[in-house]
Order: sequence, then structure tokens, then C-alpha cells
Amino acid sequence: MPVITIDGPHMSKEQKKDLVESFTREAARVTDIPAQAFIILINENDPDNVGVGGELLSRRMSKKQ
Amino acid sequence: MPVITIDGPHMSKEQKKDLVESFTREAARVTDIPAQAFIILINENDPDNVGVGGELLSRRMSKKQ
Amino acid sequence: MPVITIDGPHMSKEQKKDLVESFTREAARVTDIPAQAFIILINENDPDNVGVGGELLSRRMSKKQ
Amino acid sequence: MPVITIDGPHMSKEQKKDLVESFTREAARVTDIPAQAFIILINENDPDNVGVGGELLSRRMSKKQ
Amino acid sequence: MPVITIDGPHMSKEQKKDLVESFTREAARVTDIPAQAFIILINENDPDNVGVGGELLSRRMSKKQ
Amino acid sequence: MPVITIDGPHMSKEQKKDLVESFTREAARVTDIPAQAFIILINENDPDNVGVGGELLSRRMSKKQ
Repeated sequence: MPVITIDGPHMSKEQKKDLVESFTREAARVTDIPAQAFIILINENDPDNVGVGGELLSRRMSKKQ
Repeated sequence: MPVITIDGPHMSKEQKKDLVESFTREAARVTDIPAQAFIILINENDPDNVGVGGELLSRRMSKKQ
Repeated sequence: MPVITIDGPHMSKEQKKDLVESFTREAARVTDIPAQAFIILINENDPDNVGVGGELLSRRMSKKQ
Repeated sequence: MPVITIDGPHMSKEQKKDLVESFTREAARVTDIPAQAFIILINENDPDNVGVGGELLSRRMSKKQ
Repeated sequence: MPVITIDGPHMSKEQKKDLVESFTREAARVTDIPAQAFIILINENDPDNVGVGGELLSRRMSKKQ
Repeated sequence: MPVITIDGPHMSKEQKKDLVESFTREAARVTDIPAQAFIILINENDPDNVGVGGELLSRRMSKKQ
């Protein structure tokens, strides 16, 4: 019944599948709760909707290029 | 001033109205806080963005059909 | 697999049981998803940890008395 | 490493930049944690996905006009 | 009706009051929504319950001393 | 800058360290974002504060014994 939420970047369906599998496997191993009890919610955030160190992530990413 | 969040499936406007009315009515009854104090946030998650038991919800749904 | 979170006041175990039963019943009815799929998380917030209209809830409550 | 989340209305990029700058500045001042440690997540909610006092925000807004 | 959540360190009541006042003032200014509509939720996290860069915050803090 | 939140059971410090290490390693591998950018928040929920299938988790656990 644990709930894991990730607020991160846009991902492909293959990446989401990989993340759900590996998070569930690791969380089940650490907590000894059956894998089938885990719920995972993926929020894909636009870089304009994330702030890091007082700056929009979209601006920080454009400076790095 | 309580805040209720639901992470669930896509819903019609009529379903959202029904959910907001019934959650607010029940929460006000149980807590004895006035109905006008409640905020409800509805997040509609794509089945590719939900994991259940280590599997994407989109895959689990397609297997059931 | 939907997840409902409530950030609200301190409650008795009886109130929590009532809230979990009524939220699950109403959400299952509105969404047509089986009741056993719903997860509910209850966060009990101290009135010093809630702000309403720019003021701590603890202060607002003491003014009303 | 604190995380600030705002669930609010749709905003322009300029508004988001202003919000990220001012929240980070105020939170760093109050907590004495360096500004570069703060993460801010902005969720822009559709008025059909917000309930206030048992009513959809979209309906409440249309009544005010 | 916007909701602002901060997951951060333990704070004094005076710091919480300051944070609630300044976040509400800045958010009301940026969004042009009345201050009285804002809800703020403060979660005070134990350093053992926060991970940064793959390490518990409690360990990172002890190394800095 | 991604944020991962887990709402789960009470855990020892060793379990939290293991969870933070493994979630960060897997998320960095899947997203190709540097491990040092990840924040993880652990919420330890009391079984009286979790509902599963319309029932308190504390009751469900006592029935299994």
C-alpha cells in the first residue's frame, strides 16, 4: 500500500516502465512488503514549471548549452 | 482549510462535480469543519504514468481486455 | 489504484475509519473503479503548520474563541 | 534541499520566474538555508479540477462574472 | 484557493509565521489572487527522512561539521 | 532536480539509507540525470492514517495475525 511519487522530466514509455519496475523491486526488497502492494505516480514537469536555486529550470538548461 | 487531493483516472466534468460535492459533504460531516473551508485538487493521471505492482497501469489495463 | 490524500486536523481513530469508508465508497461510485483499489493517506497537521490567508491557523483559531 | 510546491492557476513564464525568485528569496531568508538548495514545483490546475467549498472552481468563477 | 506546500527543516513558530506571511504576500502579488484565498501547508522533515544526491541529509550534515 | 516522495511504513535508519541509495541510483540510470540532483522525501505513515480498500490499514494488519 505504499505510494511512491516522482516529479521529474518528460520520459518515454520505456523509461517509465523501467522506473516502475526498478523502484518497485528496490522498495519491496528494502521494506519486505510484497511488490504488488506498491503504487507509483509519475508527474512529468515542464522545465518552465520547476525552479532550482531561484531560477527556472528552462533558463538553467538553456545556459548550459 | 483542509486540502483533499485525488490522483485518479480521467473524469468528465459531471464526475468531478459529483466527487467534489460528495467528498466535501463527507469530510465536513466527519470533521465538523464547515464545508466552505475545504479545497479539493483533482489530478488526472495518464495510465502510462501510474505503476501498480511493478507494472504500468496502461499494460495492466490492456491485458484485462 | 487511485490515491486520495487529506491534509487536515487531528482526528480520532473512529473519525479516520469513517473518513476512509465514506471517501472510498463515494470515489468508487463516481469513478466506477472497485473500492479495493483505493489508497487513502491521512496527514494530521498541527495548527502551527497551516497558513490561511497569510496567518497561522493556530492564531486564527485563538482569535475565534 | 527543501521542496516548495504550488498548486495554483495557469501563469505566464514571467509570472513563474517571479514566483520562483521571490519564494526562494523569502524561504532562504527565513530558514537561513542557501538559495541554491531550494526546489520549486509549479502545478497549473484547470478550474474544472479544483473544488472550493463543495463546488467546482470553474462554476464559482462563472458566477462571479 | 491555491495551495502552497513546503517540505523543509524544523522551524520555530516565529519562522513559520514569517514564511506564511511572506509566501502569501508574494503569491498574491504575482497571481493577483486575494491573499485570503491561499492555504499553506508546512511539513517539517527529519534529516533521516530526506535524501540528497543518494545520501541521507542527516549524514551529509554531520560530515559538514 | 527531480523529487521522489515515498509514503510508506516506519523504517530503520539503515532501511532509509538503503532506499535513498537505490532509488537515486535507479532514477539516475533511467533518466540520465546526475545522481546529485535527486531529492528524496520519506513520509512514515501510522497504520491508523492509511486506508486500503475502504478499511484502515491498522485493522487489516490485525486481521492477518
